[in-house]
Amino acid sequence: MTFEAMWRDLTPVGRSASSGGYFRQPWTCAESELRAWFAEAALARGLELETDAMGNQVAWWRPVGATGSAVLTGSHLDSVLDGGAYDGPLGVVSALAAVDEMRSRGVVPLRPIGVSVFTEEEGSRFGLACLGSRLVTGTTTWESARERQDQSGVYLSDALASAGLDPSAGLLSLADVGCFVELHVEQGRDLVERDVAVGLASQIWPHGRYRFDFVGAANHAGTTRMEDRHDPMLTYAMTVLAANKQARLAGQRATFGRLEVAPNATNAVPSRVTGWLDARCSSDEGLAALVEAITTQGVDRAGRDATVLTVTPESVSSAVHFDPALVASLATLGDWPQIPTAAGHDAGILSAAGIPTAMLFVRNPTGVSHSPAEAAEMGDCLAGVAALADVLTELAT
Amino acid sequence: MTFEAMWRDLTPVGRSASSGGYFRQPWTCAESELRAWFAEAALARGLELETDAMGNQVAWWRPVGATGSAVLTGSHLDSVLDGGAYDGPLGVVSALAAVDEMRSRGVVPLRPIGVSVFTEEEGSRFGLACLGSRLVTGTTTWESARERQDQSGVYLSDALASAGLDPSAGLLSLADVGCFVELHVEQGRDLVERDVAVGLASQIWPHGRYRFDFVGAANHAGTTRMEDRHDPMLTYAMTVLAANKQARLAGQRATFGRLEVAPNATNAVPSRVTGWLDARCSSDEGLAALVEAITTQGVDRAGRDATVLTVTPESVSSAVHFDPALVASLATLGDWPQIPTAAGHDAGILSAAGIPTAMLFVRNPTGVSHSPAEAAEMGDCLAGVAALADVLTELAT
Repeated sequence: MTFEAMWRDLTPVGRSASSGGYFRQPWTCAESELRAWFAEAALARGLELETDAMGNQVAWWRPVGATGSAVLTGSHLDSVLDGGAYDGPLGVVSALAAVDEMRSRGVVPLRPIGVSVFTEEEGSRFGLACLGSRLVTGTTTWESARERQDQSGVYLSDALASAGLDPSAGLLSLADVGCFVELHVEQGRDLVERDVAVGLASQIWPHGRYRFDFVGAANHAGTTRMEDRHDPMLTYAMTVLAANKQARLAGQRATFGRLEVAPNATNAVPSRVTGWLDARCSSDEGLAALVEAITTQGVDRAGRDATVLTVTPESVSSAVHFDPALVASLATLGDWPQIPTAAGHDAGILSAAGIPTAMLFVRNPTGVSHSPAEAAEMGDCLAGVAALADVLTELAT
Repeated sequence: MTFEAMWRDLTPVGRSASSGGYFRQPWTCAESELRAWFAEAALARGLELETDAMGNQVAWWRPVGATGSAVLTGSHLDSVLDGGAYDGPLGVVSALAAVDEMRSRGVVPLRPIGVSVFTEEEGSRFGLACLGSRLVTGTTTWESARERQDQSGVYLSDALASAGLDPSAGLLSLADVGCFVELHVEQGRDLVERDVAVGLASQIWPHGRYRFDFVGAANHAGTTRMEDRHDPMLTYAMTVLAANKQARLAGQRATFGRLEVAPNATNAVPSRVTGWLDARCSSDEGLAALVEAITTQGVDRAGRDATVLTVTPESVSSAVHFDPALVASLATLGDWPQIPTAAGHDAGILSAAGIPTAMLFVRNPTGVSHSPAEAAEMGDCLAGVAALADVLTELAT
């Protein structure tokens, strides 16, 4: 089955008819369908499928005589809410297509090759990005993960059960994995500006998610004088503008994209506003300074609004520098520029866990991601497949 | 059954164990229980109960010989989300207690007296305040109301059916109602500052609800440079601060208490932010000028953020001046100050529909409303019952 045919299979799954975006939240029907599709793709290729209790999957190609540590490649199939088609699935489909390409070239790997799918990479349902790869690498424990609830209050363990996953299956072991290569659509316009189809990742920027709880006092929106209010929406609004300004000044990134308001009624001053800050910087020190500057301005304003601001880091990841030796050896295979990224990936989790890791990026003409406008040309996708086949051949033979 | 005993009956219904606030949304279990309680209270007093297709209720006291147009009194039983105990129920319980008080005084009304409960007064579920009284007075048509959906997407007609209401029951007729008196907890500190238990309403401030749709473009929160964004959260945040500042300057009220964000993901720049502005002013001209000033500042900022702001008025109510002759005659019955209010009430809808209307307020020591902190002393509640009994006696004999 060609890359194009696999892509056609996936196109309708979890797609919104109105926006054209994708809703592939982990352990929903759409994501279960993708998992079943992957199992079928593995079977059709004679690959040996492993599925763990979380729904993480690896399809193994173990030719007779292949020994030693494995070469792992893949990405994820889940999406953000109303996300694009490529973020995740491009890396999985390209990995399967690269296996096909190697076979058609007559390549016989001397090491096992695994095509992996890590679940809840986006953290769109349980709020912690790369949950599948975090659990597999021990970066996060099951004891802390199981307490997580989605926005409807469903516990993680109940979501897993409802998706028909086997809790006794345990978690994937990466003990025999020697290196990991993830192919991903670019989430910016670097390759567009350089006019090339494929690039190599040099590093992932430090990244943090912080919960900002603004607490005030509910009251009647009509009868309460402006000067008598403790309105946390005002503190939130000023903090949003401060975050934007600080990030602009520092040349970094700060976003408030998720919000919860209580009681969220038109005629009531809110009692509480909770916003999540997503911050990314080119250095760990820059990230800490950015979050501190935003927090300081928010707390100052809370004093004036008679509200209280509490900031809780939910996840903070240091810079990931991909394995220099690995990246240098791959750089000889093609004319691929090395570019940094501010997006988090399972590759960052595996790298931080000590597995030599690299990433390939495929050009995105819009530069847009986490949106229905995310794009990639078929020609560039096929160039990505060829590049990945070259990389896997280099690593496994 | 005394006022205290009725109040004890109602205290646990729809109460949150954690906040102490009330969740009495229309056509939920809690509100159905309140409707059943009211039916039982009517039965126990030998009052004739009328319930319409919306769940509006009137319990009629029609002594032999009572003729002519009716005197209607009452309030509502629904609450805002996490609201207080008194906003609504105080007026209903006081009306029933006033009937008891008149009977114990030996008063025999010459006109019918009705105790009314109008549903969805807060608009907490379907977004339009005073929905029950709007439909009954023809201020809103059933054809437009039936299209409304709650925040879960449930249509109004389905909500009515699930509450077991009879669609063939039609709507209450107010054709025979000669006047309406609503007793309500005060939603401010005017009576506290005047050191009196009971007041009369002079007018309701003009009031409007406006939907502010801020549209931008979703994108990746990590990889999208600040200068490449179309982030509607920024435009929203600036508009919130502008609304607050304009209302302060003008001595009026402006609140953004309800918000919806899409896709509402931590790692995505939002594509859309929808906020609802609640605005109230002492004059119609002031209200129009306030909303225009806020809109102008929001649109200016949208230009700078490369987003689009659209403002849609969802409901705009002019000033309600309660019936001068009625208010003047009631003012002679007690030492009750006349005060304006910035809160909307069913009394405002009935008054605008041409029914002579008045309101009594009962002191609220905290001045807080639409919050668990809303309060009233038992002594003040009983003073309210006595005042209402005096008013009804004056009007019906």
